[in-house]
Amino acid sequence: MEKPDQILELVQPIRDDLLSGAAEIALRAITIFQTVMAEKECEDASVMKERLIKTARALISAQPAMAPLFHLGNSVLTAIKEGSDSAQMQKDVQDALDRTEKQLCESAALIADHVYDFVPPGEMVFAYSFSSTVVSALLSARAKGRYFRVCCTEARSSLEGRKLAAQLASGGIEVIHTFDNAMGLILPNCSVAFMGCDCIGPPGVVNKVGSWTLAVSCRELKVPLYALAGTEKFVTEDWLFEFEKYERPGAEVWDAAPKGVRVLNQQFELIPFNLITALVTEKGVLKEQHVNDYVGRLTVHDALKLEAASF
Amino acid sequence: MEKPDQILELVQPIRDDLLSGAAEIALRAITIFQTVMAEKECEDASVMKERLIKTARALISAQPAMAPLFHLGNSVLTAIKEGSDSAQMQKDVQDALDRTEKQLCESAALIADHVYDFVPPGEMVFAYSFSSTVVSALLSARAKGRYFRVCCTEARSSLEGRKLAAQLASGGIEVIHTFDNAMGLILPNCSVAFMGCDCIGPPGVVNKVGSWTLAVSCRELKVPLYALAGTEKFVTEDWLFEFEKYERPGAEVWDAAPKGVRVLNQQFELIPFNLITALVTEKGVLKEQHVNDYVGRLTVHDALKLEAASF
Repeated sequence: MEKPDQILELVQPIRDDLLSGAAEIALRAITIFQTVMAEKECEDASVMKERLIKTARALISAQPAMAPLFHLGNSVLTAIKEGSDSAQMQKDVQDALDRTEKQLCESAALIADHVYDFVPPGEMVFAYSFSSTVVSALLSARAKGRYFRVCCTEARSSLEGRKLAAQLASGGIEVIHTFDNAMGLILPNCSVAFMGCDCIGPPGVVNKVGSWTLAVSCRELKVPLYALAGTEKFVTEDWLFEFEKYERPGAEVWDAAPKGVRVLNQQFELIPFNLITALVTEKGVLKEQHVNDYVGRLTVHDALKLEAASF
Repeated sequence: MEKPDQILELVQPIRDDLLSGAAEIALRAITIFQTVMAEKECEDASVMKERLIKTARALISAQPAMAPLFHLGNSVLTAIKEGSDSAQMQKDVQDALDRTEKQLCESAALIADHVYDFVPPGEMVFAYSFSSTVVSALLSARAKGRYFRVCCTEARSSLEGRKLAAQLASGGIEVIHTFDNAMGLILPNCSVAFMGCDCIGPPGVVNKVGSWTLAVSCRELKVPLYALAGTEKFVTEDWLFEFEKYERPGAEVWDAAPKGVRVLNQQFELIPFNLITALVTEKGVLKEQHVNDYVGRLTVHDALKLEAASF
């Protein structure tokens, strides 16, 4: 018995979420897998497996730029052993979910430790878009007694930069906020810039639109730019470009555009590695060649291979 | 008898105008000088002179980045001859206003002729912010039978990019519109970029915030960027930096910013000449050294010299 609509309903808030970072969304997706496994019809192991595959695909399709959702689904499906009964399958999947949750939280804490050394005392720091990894790194540096100010911009079209500003300010950091195209006015006053990212692969990192102009501006002004991300953001090159599938309605940008004006609302873009000073991961500072090595070792469950996926 | 409030009242709409380009605003300022000269107390020549000085200073102070207002005021005050009666003064000032109006309109038409050669047929063209000079150049190219599409962005915080999109679309040009930080996604599809400017001096051009990131992005992508402006935008170096005085309330960017978040709303920035391919003026394509020569010949009325100004 198929209930595709229930999974889609559970996943819809993830699809509509314009304000949360990828790690944050992956944590919420864990509860979706748990909800699906608790469905009555999942007492049948083969139904459970089929529903879990559907859930993994629906989550990835909801936010194709967000690699942690891909890894979460991949871990869940890889945890399922051939011939398990439903109790065993539920236990194995729950273990995989727990491991992912633990990894996401530990990653953020380890990244925060590495980032501390990159936050110069008494200086101005730039942060872009919203990333729970960036927020936790900056709040952690502040909690360890480092004083600094943060500049951030709105991050149109969704304005999630306001969420960043509010969370940093509520953690006792002085924040200077402006609109995105004023980057050129405030970046010269910043000693370093940080951004999160949604996925990372051989050609570069994918992050919220505006990251490319930030990166080009940083290079012009000689402001080092660090992308902060756990290795749960790493994906193979073919998956990396899935972000291009995600486009929001133009009306969210301009709801009264006149005839003859087509409004684009793309949310993500690729920033090549040569525009970024370094990646800061839970394993420390990584460069392009480390990413290639890591991605070369990734294994993808058959149900999530791009050829097989039909969502 | 002083009536400073009446002049300030006449000038207030100019101060509050966030959507119009500098040339457009200068045309409207002409009528303000005419209104002031028609005041009853201006039957006294010395009162008229004093009121015209006040008007010129108030207009420049309302939009310090907009050089045509400076030149308009400078022309008006320079036209006043020592010992004139009020009828003569009114005639001389009206002649100066007429000359400025004629020059502004002719400039736009001549620039449009030069720009035609820079609009590649069938290609995508990027245009930034709102500039009546850019609009007239693109509409003129279209009217002469050149087909092309225009990409433009919102130009936060005032969104005058929407005015640009609407005017181009109503003139039969197909427009693609998006938010400012998506520049990096659409510029690679553009063959050329145009912007207006508010003033030009020895170090570069001053234009709406966002022009610097546009210029840096264009250079990175090897998209030629032309600034379109009549020589009525040229000012001496000391005047050029007057734009820094103009800042709008932060609440126009974010009206509900939480405690601890300071919101900046600067409107203009300087783009150094080395980031711009060329200036297109009514005299043709000018480079940096031409600007220096031109500015060296400018004469500023005593009442508008920065040391003397007390507005």
